[in-house]
Amino acid sequence: MHSAVFANTPQPPYYAVIFTSQRSDTEHQAYADMADAMVALAGQQPGFLGAESCRGSDGLGITVSYWQPEDDIRRWKAHSDHLIAQRMGTERWYAHYAVRVAKVERAYGMR
Amino acid sequence: MHSAVFANTPQPPYYAVIFTSQRSDTEHQAYADMADAMVALAGQQPGFLGAESCRGSDGLGITVSYWQPEDDIRRWKAHSDHLIAQRMGTERWYAHYAVRVAKVERAYGMR
Repeated sequence: MHSAVFANTPQPPYYAVIFTSQRSDTEHQAYADMADAMVALAGQQPGFLGAESCRGSDGLGITVSYWQPEDDIRRWKAHSDHLIAQRMGTERWYAHYAVRVAKVERAYGMR
Repeated sequence: MHSAVFANTPQPPYYAVIFTSQRSDTEHQAYADMADAMVALAGQQPGFLGAESCRGSDGLGITVSYWQPEDDIRRWKAHSDHLIAQRMGTERWYAHYAVRVAKVERAYGMR
């Protein structure tokens, strides 16, 4: 039922990029459009396994994307359209953000 | 300004527990109370470095907690009060969840 919003990742190991951001209170539609475009573009990249994302009413958001192999994370970071989005985010849309790249060693859950 | 909601983590390496959950549409106050209690309790555990959390209007939530050393993650998972919360979550509050334990290898961001 809800599986569309959960990433269907393989057995570990694989990589996670944890992106935490606080939105500034600006340009909501422009931001939403770019965010949608980046999700779609990430989904077309080699090595992309899936992503999970949420944003609360306070503007704090977390997106975790999953990748294998790790080199494809660096390739996505350097993608030309993604570089534009990163610059817009830094200059206009985010009050604060953090990126952490982590190797997933074990996983479990319930569907 | 927004730093209270961002985890003030040290230089990598350290560990991240990525907990993604889809809430069932039940017991909102009981769930909120337990979630608050677990955040407070986690903050008292040895090895806890911080956490970041959000839940969107669709009920999908992500909480990432940061730990060092890794053994303290297992200790927290086995904490008696946390075990009760886990059981309530599985039986009543979550339609779906996933837990991933990952070693953070690099991090960057903007404050």
